[in-house]
Amino acid sequence: MEFNINLSHIEAAHNRIRAYIHRTPVMTSASLDKMAGCSLYFKCENFQKIGAFKARGGLNAVMTLPESQKAKGVVTHSSGNHAQAVALAAKLAGIPAYIVMPRTAPKIKQKGVNALNANITLCEPTLEAREQGAEEIMRKTGATFISPYNNHAVIAGQATCAKELLEDYPELDQIVTPVGGGGLLAGTLLSANYLKPIIEVFAGEPEGAMDTYLSFKSGVHQKVANPKTIADGLLASMGDINFAIIKPLLKDVFLVNDDEIVAAMRLIWERMKIVIEPSCAVPFAALLKNKTVFSGKKVGIILTGGNVDLNHLPF
Amino acid sequence: MEFNINLSHIEAAHNRIRAYIHRTPVMTSASLDKMAGCSLYFKCENFQKIGAFKARGGLNAVMTLPESQKAKGVVTHSSGNHAQAVALAAKLAGIPAYIVMPRTAPKIKQKGVNALNANITLCEPTLEAREQGAEEIMRKTGATFISPYNNHAVIAGQATCAKELLEDYPELDQIVTPVGGGGLLAGTLLSANYLKPIIEVFAGEPEGAMDTYLSFKSGVHQKVANPKTIADGLLASMGDINFAIIKPLLKDVFLVNDDEIVAAMRLIWERMKIVIEPSCAVPFAALLKNKTVFSGKKVGIILTGGNVDLNHLPF
Repeated sequence: MEFNINLSHIEAAHNRIRAYIHRTPVMTSASLDKMAGCSLYFKCENFQKIGAFKARGGLNAVMTLPESQKAKGVVTHSSGNHAQAVALAAKLAGIPAYIVMPRTAPKIKQKGVNALNANITLCEPTLEAREQGAEEIMRKTGATFISPYNNHAVIAGQATCAKELLEDYPELDQIVTPVGGGGLLAGTLLSANYLKPIIEVFAGEPEGAMDTYLSFKSGVHQKVANPKTIADGLLASMGDINFAIIKPLLKDVFLVNDDEIVAAMRLIWERMKIVIEPSCAVPFAALLKNKTVFSGKKVGIILTGGNVDLNHLPF
Repeated sequence: MEFNINLSHIEAAHNRIRAYIHRTPVMTSASLDKMAGCSLYFKCENFQKIGAFKARGGLNAVMTLPESQKAKGVVTHSSGNHAQAVALAAKLAGIPAYIVMPRTAPKIKQKGVNALNANITLCEPTLEAREQGAEEIMRKTGATFISPYNNHAVIAGQATCAKELLEDYPELDQIVTPVGGGGLLAGTLLSANYLKPIIEVFAGEPEGAMDTYLSFKSGVHQKVANPKTIADGLLASMGDINFAIIKPLLKDVFLVNDDEIVAAMRLIWERMKIVIEPSCAVPFAALLKNKTVFSGKKVGIILTGGNVDLNHLPF
């Protein structure tokens, strides 16, 4: 099958961003293996720069802009990790970053973006207000919009995560990632497809934002209105670029509810002694709910991020 | 200077326990380095078996018992990580472990000991009741008492932690550990003394349990009555075996209060995305309070454990 992003794009992305990201460790846990009935390999992107895998895609997208375009800066709207990723990439490139954030975004995430010297514009917490805010900035400054997921360079950047995982553990049978907009999932599917096509890639998705589930099962790209889940990084609806990759390559997608997400998050905190955010617990929750699919296998799980407000923990 | 524990004891301990412990990773953090004004190397014993360095000393102490003595089992009184360490060591040796725990010990720690098949005896939460409980068990069963810190084999076991750190980072200038009973501190001092005597070793201690501070500053071994601190792993008073090592080798000890401990703990959770317990944050709190001592240096910090009750976090 032919995709717009091929292995050489992913390799180029990796070479481009390598010096600015961490090669994150892969952790294992005997007690979680026992509980899950398989061998788990957790790729710890919670230890990544800015605390999430989003640094990979943001960096690659900004670094591949033509110089003339780059100079005018970059803009995005995000309440979360993508905002920090774009701000970091712009700071490293020495160009302005304009971030439109809902005024309800957690203070800790505003602080993170602020610390990277980005220009923050607060707006009403609706998609419309966010898009309007970004468009106004683009008109005024000529800055380039960087989508969090519906962008080839972003997807190639996120693909470097599964590439590292497969370089470190080529023996994996399966990989599970969460899915929101589909940047990480699409990138993971492509890396697996090029590096070890026999691997089965699964997605975990919150019930309250089940657009990928509906789209994948029906074969028709769909969105859900008013998504709602504790996994605040997975509220976005999948992009069309993402769906074109996910549809033919994904093995299956599993839904989990908020209670299952919080229980999986707590298990990882307690047993692995690492801080992960709710979105990040979704693949492990999906695995625990569907043990027979993974029984006895070597399963890679991408732990996507660790940016959580310690004043508002779900336990 | 001559000590009862020499380098060959520490090497033998390491060879003895190596197969049963994790060689824990050393983590770094650019943002914490910037904040501290030095280069920090965090030895992550929160990722150790049973979630704390105590596994090292407990295993070495149980494994060095003569066979005839071992068969009758081991006993200790502890509300915390040492109980799990002894239970783990006994389980691996296939011998009974008897643990006297105050009935007020956190349910999560009782659960941890239970999961290791140890026999738990609950008692009133006083040192007297704990000692009495342990003595009664020794009388009935002939089991051997394993002190959490005032024991040569325990100290040699804990010394393997700094040994690994210095093997991985021989360029360190300084090491900081917390001090409670003094097992880890004494072991660290001995490893540093044998492997790189020029290194300065410091201790961090809670103000509410400042017996090491009083003893070290006066040169006379002292205890404090009714110690009280959020660092529940550091309530014990230093042992005499420990003081004999600490007195000549320690560079200095710094006091921190509970607010400083919680602030340092939170920084490590937020910036490093790892779960550590309050006792574990004491050295970093001490360093932040005494930055000039560490300015520009390469500083090893032993992160001792990650067993924290997520239902009762201090933030």
